[in-house]
Amino acid sequence: MVKHACTKSDIAGASFSIHPMSDQFVEIIKGALEEADTTKVHMDTDDVTTTVRGKLIHVFDVTKAIFVHAAKTGKHVAFEATYSLGCPGDSKGEAYMAEDEIPLNAELVKDIKQPVAAKFSLYPLGGGNYMDVIYSQIEAMKQHVTVSHAHYATRLDGEAIAIFGGLEQVFKATVEGGSSHTVMTVSISANSPSHTGTDRDE
Amino acid sequence: MVKHACTKSDIAGASFSIHPMSDQFVEIIKGALEEADTTKVHMDTDDVTTTVRGKLIHVFDVTKAIFVHAAKTGKHVAFEATYSLGCPGDSKGEAYMAEDEIPLNAELVKDIKQPVAAKFSLYPLGGGNYMDVIYSQIEAMKQHVTVSHAHYATRLDGEAIAIFGGLEQVFKATVEGGSSHTVMTVSISANSPSHTGTDRDE
Repeated sequence: MVKHACTKSDIAGASFSIHPMSDQFVEIIKGALEEADTTKVHMDTDDVTTTVRGKLIHVFDVTKAIFVHAAKTGKHVAFEATYSLGCPGDSKGEAYMAEDEIPLNAELVKDIKQPVAAKFSLYPLGGGNYMDVIYSQIEAMKQHVTVSHAHYATRLDGEAIAIFGGLEQVFKATVEGGSSHTVMTVSISANSPSHTGTDRDE
Repeated sequence: MVKHACTKSDIAGASFSIHPMSDQFVEIIKGALEEADTTKVHMDTDDVTTTVRGKLIHVFDVTKAIFVHAAKTGKHVAFEATYSLGCPGDSKGEAYMAEDEIPLNAELVKDIKQPVAAKFSLYPLGGGNYMDVIYSQIEAMKQHVTVSHAHYATRLDGEAIAIFGGLEQVFKATVEGGSSHTVMTVSISANSPSHTGTDRDE
């Protein structure tokens, strides 16, 4: 009987990939992974995705840093992630829950300018009363990024750092609003040669 | 007020990306999009993802064909998709629901050999009694592909055509089991230089 394996409710995690559209993809991925400080999360990399688990603040801090370090190479880089919190199941990675709340990468990457286009979808699978909280967080995001509709997703255009900040706030608001199992999928594109922001036919 | 835009319950769709880790990424993506016959789906491409919508059979047929055409170049190619059916909302793309059930690409790609590693997660958001159906579909998949646990996902190793076939069956079983809103996320990796299948630390 195969089930999706997931973690205890206080452990956040992300399964993500960095895809540099470049012949130097190995160097870019390895460089980004090395440049980020991942000591406050449990991290595994296999041939499909990298998994990070730990406190929510560190999961976002580490994934943001890895993406920004890859994107600042100037190559077209895509980031694909599923963030998750609250799926009952195994207990691996719990040791990392003893870490403090001080993100290790935030200060180092906060001034990196990297315009990106992103799409995210939020799936609050565990009940709760969060819709008003989510909407107010998305409204707050509009001060920093452009928010628009997309099929199966909400589109965000702006600086990578602001977008990751907004995504973290929306995710936190959903969890704190009572969703006992929250999933958020994110696609981000940096340095795309086809970026126009308006080349969609709708 | 921004909400995730989605479609009427009989329209299936996918928001997906092909990421060739190659300096020739533009040619590979464009070539794959041109090589696939997409006349039975509504398709939009922007700088983050491509959206296809129509009947379920054609959504899987087209995404499978585009991935296989990109992967057969031999380059390291990642495929990231969110399949969705049943989110109430707009009605665009409905015209394509008049198409017949004959997939246009299946015969053309069925003999292409392409070993891949994949991870998928299924989110049945709309109730229903489908768990037994899903498990039996996953059991059936084991005849053709290797199924294992992954964090936040189920891992599949095998031929791309068999894996897409299995994913389509699991998704259909969930919908037919009564889930009124079904979401499935899929990550697939082809021709990865780091593919070992066993380089995970767990």
